[in-house]
Amino acid sequence: MLTHGGDLDGYARRYPGREPLDFSANLNPLGMPQAVRAALHEAVEGCARYPDPLCRDLREALAGHWRLDPAQIFCANGAAEAFDRLAAVLKPRTALLVAPAFSEYERALTAAGCACRFHTLRREEGFALTGRILPEIGAGIDAVFLGSPNNPTAQAVDLRLLEAVAERCAAAGAWLIVDECFGGFLADDRERSLLRRLSQYDRLVVVRAFTKRYALAGVRLGWCVAQDPALIEALCAAGQPWNVSYLAQRAGLAALGCEGFEAETVRLVARERAFLSDGLRRLGLWVCPGQANFVLFQSKSPDLSERLLPRSILLRDCSDFRGLGPGWYRAAVRSRAENERLLQALGEV
Amino acid sequence: MLTHGGDLDGYARRYPGREPLDFSANLNPLGMPQAVRAALHEAVEGCARYPDPLCRDLREALAGHWRLDPAQIFCANGAAEAFDRLAAVLKPRTALLVAPAFSEYERALTAAGCACRFHTLRREEGFALTGRILPEIGAGIDAVFLGSPNNPTAQAVDLRLLEAVAERCAAAGAWLIVDECFGGFLADDRERSLLRRLSQYDRLVVVRAFTKRYALAGVRLGWCVAQDPALIEALCAAGQPWNVSYLAQRAGLAALGCEGFEAETVRLVARERAFLSDGLRRLGLWVCPGQANFVLFQSKSPDLSERLLPRSILLRDCSDFRGLGPGWYRAAVRSRAENERLLQALGEV
Repeated sequence: MLTHGGDLDGYARRYPGREPLDFSANLNPLGMPQAVRAALHEAVEGCARYPDPLCRDLREALAGHWRLDPAQIFCANGAAEAFDRLAAVLKPRTALLVAPAFSEYERALTAAGCACRFHTLRREEGFALTGRILPEIGAGIDAVFLGSPNNPTAQAVDLRLLEAVAERCAAAGAWLIVDECFGGFLADDRERSLLRRLSQYDRLVVVRAFTKRYALAGVRLGWCVAQDPALIEALCAAGQPWNVSYLAQRAGLAALGCEGFEAETVRLVARERAFLSDGLRRLGLWVCPGQANFVLFQSKSPDLSERLLPRSILLRDCSDFRGLGPGWYRAAVRSRAENERLLQALGEV
Repeated sequence: MLTHGGDLDGYARRYPGREPLDFSANLNPLGMPQAVRAALHEAVEGCARYPDPLCRDLREALAGHWRLDPAQIFCANGAAEAFDRLAAVLKPRTALLVAPAFSEYERALTAAGCACRFHTLRREEGFALTGRILPEIGAGIDAVFLGSPNNPTAQAVDLRLLEAVAERCAAAGAWLIVDECFGGFLADDRERSLLRRLSQYDRLVVVRAFTKRYALAGVRLGWCVAQDPALIEALCAAGQPWNVSYLAQRAGLAALGCEGFEAETVRLVARERAFLSDGLRRLGLWVCPGQANFVLFQSKSPDLSERLLPRSILLRDCSDFRGLGPGWYRAAVRSRAENERLLQALGEV
């Protein structure tokens, strides 16, 4: 069953020959950097060979980029695989998630036999995480999964609160898994990322991805970091050794060299997020405040996504998210012309 | 830790700038078909998008190719991922493997909490599977994993014996997982494959890969088939939905169109396998009879692989295989000129 956005194949089957504007997948509106595209073409010529199971070059490059030890890094076939392996290795009996959140945390945990509890975010708080979560972290909770920024709300967790959560987890003996896959769209990503605070917390895992920031969704490349190399070794042993393709490893290496691209991405997303949010509000919709490259909003119509399809626009219907329901939608932040097209189409339907 | 062949990255670190001849990974000596290479280059331009989580086009093409139902097919990030998901979903308590065999079966099963028993193949039987295995399949065995052809022996299981094993598994209520990843190198692959006998066995899973036959190891693409679509659905739910990259899906579709390539592969491997085996025997080595695109042989020297490294040749040292030990090696079957180079180098060291 399909529960996520970005179903271009399903669209192509329903509307043959049409090329839709996809607001349902949260990818960088700049597309893939040219250097990454070139690296992929070059890698095609070498991909008869097995990929390096240890991802040595990529882990060393990531370690240099973030001042980590390569032994603290696990590379994955997309961040989603990291969640699967973390669930399998950490084997929490009970995990605390927020709602709404990316549904793959719950799927991965459930598949590993873990029971999930949910801390419900509130619309009146802009779906921001607040100190209300702290007393819920305690005995009986083995792991806490948080997105920062969270999907689909786009809200980054306040850094002081995140530290308080991490301390509470440490006191309770619970693992804290922070999904920073959308961190690359924040102006203060480097300062804000928990990667800089890794040494302070034994039971912290930070998950990040190349997928969204470098528009590499079809290539699959994510990674996670933990202070203890023993956990990284356990993650490696929990699945096949060739999980990251040669193509993905080469693409990741090229992406890490695209510094200018990152700054341009952040500027574009900040400007267009404001433009799109304003436009949605002007249409009378409730818009969730946030920071990442997508916007959560609420409408009185439960069928906006369906009505946009014939107009060649894909919008993520969020009715299936725990804590939301019919009338909730998520739109990726795209280029000005594309965002205008979405706003115009929404105005018409 | 690295336990498999094909460690080109490790070689490059030890011998910078040299391009070794890799006999340690069992890939098609013809390399990647041109149509697949072209499809990959084309796919690079589209891989900002998420891959189809349902692999609809690829599953339909595979179903057409093998006369199956797409609902019976699970596509994976290489066959190795299929073993991981099968172990996680079937949850056998005790599995029967042969020794020597591909070590990933044991790793995947152990990671899923399964105990492994081993049926030891015998050198005096050419490491062929024989009826000796039948009485070992019974109460207390939940799954049997067999490679046909088996890695590293290259021995395909006799079809009548395979059917007897399948019946024995059915009677014992055990799953039979047959790894046919090297089936594509056999002249009688179509007739021999258990894919043609799927409807006869409820608890049969056949695993295959594009990796070896189409020299796609760096792309990662495998698949498995079971009669009951409920098992396929369970395999899908056991991990992330985007496990197969867009690049891999497009490469697989292109590969399925390469009929002439398959016949050429089979002819080349049959001819060169005989040439390489004869040459090895002439060097006084014991050579395992077999059918696939690699040759297992035994030498009195425990350090052949190490001594070939300065000659820019990678040979798989099989001392770490259960049931083998020092002095065992596996060489991929390559082109005539390359096989001659290996034989010459072996003669010298």
